[in-house]
Amino acid sequence: MRIAIDAMGGDLGSKLPVRGAIAALKERQDLEVVLLGPEDLLAQQVSEIIGTGDRVRSRLFVEHAAEVVGMAESPVDAVRKKKNSTIMVGFELVREKKADAVISAGNSGATMAAAIRKLGRLQGVSRPGIASFFPTLKKPVMIMDIGANVDCRPQHLLQFAIMASSCASLLHGLDQPRVGLLSIGEEASKGNTLVKETHELLSASTLNFIGNVEGRDVYKGDVDVIICDGCVGNISLKISEGLADAAMQMLKAEILQTWRAKIGYLLIKNAFARFRQRVDYAEYGGAPLLGIKGTGIICHGTSNAVALQNAVFVAADMVSHKVNDGITRALADYNA
Amino acid sequence: MRIAIDAMGGDLGSKLPVRGAIAALKERQDLEVVLLGPEDLLAQQVSEIIGTGDRVRSRLFVEHAAEVVGMAESPVDAVRKKKNSTIMVGFELVREKKADAVISAGNSGATMAAAIRKLGRLQGVSRPGIASFFPTLKKPVMIMDIGANVDCRPQHLLQFAIMASSCASLLHGLDQPRVGLLSIGEEASKGNTLVKETHELLSASTLNFIGNVEGRDVYKGDVDVIICDGCVGNISLKISEGLADAAMQMLKAEILQTWRAKIGYLLIKNAFARFRQRVDYAEYGGAPLLGIKGTGIICHGTSNAVALQNAVFVAADMVSHKVNDGITRALADYNA
Repeated sequence: MRIAIDAMGGDLGSKLPVRGAIAALKERQDLEVVLLGPEDLLAQQVSEIIGTGDRVRSRLFVEHAAEVVGMAESPVDAVRKKKNSTIMVGFELVREKKADAVISAGNSGATMAAAIRKLGRLQGVSRPGIASFFPTLKKPVMIMDIGANVDCRPQHLLQFAIMASSCASLLHGLDQPRVGLLSIGEEASKGNTLVKETHELLSASTLNFIGNVEGRDVYKGDVDVIICDGCVGNISLKISEGLADAAMQMLKAEILQTWRAKIGYLLIKNAFARFRQRVDYAEYGGAPLLGIKGTGIICHGTSNAVALQNAVFVAADMVSHKVNDGITRALADYNA
Repeated sequence: MRIAIDAMGGDLGSKLPVRGAIAALKERQDLEVVLLGPEDLLAQQVSEIIGTGDRVRSRLFVEHAAEVVGMAESPVDAVRKKKNSTIMVGFELVREKKADAVISAGNSGATMAAAIRKLGRLQGVSRPGIASFFPTLKKPVMIMDIGANVDCRPQHLLQFAIMASSCASLLHGLDQPRVGLLSIGEEASKGNTLVKETHELLSASTLNFIGNVEGRDVYKGDVDVIICDGCVGNISLKISEGLADAAMQMLKAEILQTWRAKIGYLLIKNAFARFRQRVDYAEYGGAPLLGIKGTGIICHGTSNAVALQNAVFVAADMVSHKVNDGITRALADYNA
């Protein structure tokens, strides 16, 4: 299995993807990784991290890509004008069956656009979308869509539910993932027109639909998959990140006010670190694109090496568990 | 000034509203409070808290209301069938100019419906809405709408912006409140059709519109008013509450794992308490209904006495600062 990593995407430079790739190769002998970016630069960075005799070198490749799509560039322009960008080269490798998946911490809209352009949509999919794992009090929950589709119809949300349910089922070994619909109240009558009409479609489906879930239920962990449009999903994700950051800053400011609390903090530091690890997106390995003919994973722009390493594992899991076959089958079953 | 409090709404019984009312009266000599609910019960509860000779008694009244609207009842049914509910009686007092404002921690949809039924909408308002204060790293931000209007048109969001900006300006003494539009990216091109069309209206208005804000900006405190539809606002509010709860539970679980961390916690406890107070909704005094001919404040279902006391102060501020006159003037200016 060969996973391609965009070494130039992300806000923190190319060293982290290179480190993440090498860490993944060291941990799993069955994987190969292709780094996407300027050949000379990447060869040099690899040499700075591992010696020429290191055994993982035989499973680490570089595919030259001269261009990079900036974080603020329009996805449509990027796909049209930058044919030699890391993400376009990556999905071309998948198209030619020279790689099994692409991972990028760069411009997520452009990554989705490049995937659709190079690979196309899976049979029966109207709108591919982005799923993401949120930490909860129990197991992580998969939320879809988190930003690819801002104006949705009920049929699109139903397809998100079918795709995310298949993916969660295969990735996490769940028999019938519990699917919830994000709304403003538990009753079927609560929510906007889109949500109410989607509720009807989901109720009539064979999915294990448990009804509406409210914002306050997201982090409880009593549902495996949560469905929403990309606007609501994106705002939910980013408001959570923003709140976590702000809360940590406020708590730190309060702790720094007294010596007593500062000493307490020294004793409690490890518990804080374990807590942070538990809620850290880096542990969850990025957000899979669902609905494209191939495998793509979008990572946070500030992903560290651990996040990228975990994204390699999630990509490999998606390929080995044949998630796309599952999605195609589930959509065909629904349409039949 | 006389503020009516629904003593029967909320999940925690009638004692908290009674305590909140008495606390408010003790702190501000210029206020009177009317408790709404069963006369005998409330008279008894008042006597349990303060003696017959207590001076605040002369400013504390009870208005008999035999019925209570349940948290899960349909607002339309509640308004139609329970004419003697606490909230209907409360807004009737406002209609008859026997009270200046109503506060309820009960069914928020029914409270809004009762307010519209009894008082009607302010001149020029298409859709009244609910504003709420969110804590941030700096000053609280006012977000509107947080759940009254699930399917909105751009014109509705523009009106929310005009109303919330007027309210924030008068309540917080801001000359030109910074108004942001909640979306999935800063550029005007980001967001769904509703957001993009609202962006155009806000840009053309005389409001101090600073453009789109993302979920991660909500808690930074660099904007005074954030506008969104009621679905997005409600989910944003509840996901924040859910995350805060879950994070505290996870952190506690990690702390309880070692003796070292437990001792650290004892030293750090006060810092935690100050942090909690800073983010506690109870400090912010509830969510004002904006756009009705009168003043109404919705409180969280689990409001404690402090939250209800603060809601009395916010209601009094809204009345004394003539927020509704400001809103009517701002809407008339816009239409002229």
